[in-house]
Amino acid sequence: MLKLYGFAVSNYYNMVKLALLEKGVPFEEVPFFAAQTPEALTVSPCAKVPALEVEQGFINETNVILEYIEQTQPGPKLLPTDPFERAQVLALAKEIELYIELPARACYAEAFFGMQVPDAIKSKAKAELLQGIASLGRQGKFAPYVAGETLSVADIYFLYSVSLASAVGHKVFGMDLLAELPAAKALLEHFEKNPHVQRIAADREAAMPKFLAWISSKK
Amino acid sequence: MLKLYGFAVSNYYNMVKLALLEKGVPFEEVPFFAAQTPEALTVSPCAKVPALEVEQGFINETNVILEYIEQTQPGPKLLPTDPFERAQVLALAKEIELYIELPARACYAEAFFGMQVPDAIKSKAKAELLQGIASLGRQGKFAPYVAGETLSVADIYFLYSVSLASAVGHKVFGMDLLAELPAAKALLEHFEKNPHVQRIAADREAAMPKFLAWISSKK
Repeated sequence: MLKLYGFAVSNYYNMVKLALLEKGVPFEEVPFFAAQTPEALTVSPCAKVPALEVEQGFINETNVILEYIEQTQPGPKLLPTDPFERAQVLALAKEIELYIELPARACYAEAFFGMQVPDAIKSKAKAELLQGIASLGRQGKFAPYVAGETLSVADIYFLYSVSLASAVGHKVFGMDLLAELPAAKALLEHFEKNPHVQRIAADREAAMPKFLAWISSKK
Repeated sequence: MLKLYGFAVSNYYNMVKLALLEKGVPFEEVPFFAAQTPEALTVSPCAKVPALEVEQGFINETNVILEYIEQTQPGPKLLPTDPFERAQVLALAKEIELYIELPARACYAEAFFGMQVPDAIKSKAKAELLQGIASLGRQGKFAPYVAGETLSVADIYFLYSVSLASAVGHKVFGMDLLAELPAAKALLEHFEKNPHVQRIAADREAAMPKFLAWISSKK
């Protein structure tokens, strides 16, 4: 059986978890906090979460894991089969990762963990975030899903990136990043009714106290 | 015929160009400087370089373009066909992008264009770069290629990321990032003898003066 390594507070972990749940693929969750120890680096050589253990070994990097699952597992398709259409969905997912999740991530410490992020980093992140959200507005179809009528890998990135970026917007920059994207807000609300998304959110809430204690111990 | 949009100074543009040259796929180069204009956003909605124009439209994001080329074009394989082995190469490429190219990129303005980068950003970039390079040292096979005996997508990321990161190390941090990775240095030297790499380097040198003038005009 596939084994998903990581922890329920990680948004990237939850991306892979949602893909597996949507496809109905059985998997085991293995609690794993990446670290620079020899044992942990065997699972994840870059000390990142999540990793997927399959028969042959470990696979790292969320988008690579998602593509591997798509290529090898049964269940509803999360990517088109036509190469051009597939590329459009993958590009949208990548753009959400690079231009929304990553700049938002630079501010997570201040938004969620009571730490201070230097102004230079916040200022760079804010400029990138505004461009990333504007680009999502131009490209997203929201019909109702990001890339069209069916749930895709782009939605998985959207759900677990834009929600956090939006929180960063409110908490760090005092602004509503989605003010001009009501369709994106509607899609986030739509996902709140998805039972797999609900299960992942419940698991995250349950894991949060232990995670916050771990973060505090590292400060 | 495939059309590659971008400019010869862009390392991501050169990644796709090398893939096409290695595969022997005919393509046309279309000079394109991404911008926030309606025309340019039609080519690249996130205002990034490169974009690949195919019969059905434009494809963005280098890794997505490389996968599309692999899936649709003839020539030497740049990715394994086995899903697990393919995932290992793609993960290595992604890790070079996220943990080496992106932190190095945060310092390009200071390393190459005579601008100042705030200390907070440099300090974050340096910490990430050191971890990224250490991880590459643990994972890279350098036999002689990054992922094994044949040239792969991981080498394409390696060549056009680690060379610039190494320059950032020298120019911004006064350090040799590859000091403990002689095999990586040897691979960079090996690539200098590749005629496609040589052609791309010559095109880059030829394009550099115009590019630097464009950068200066934006300061």
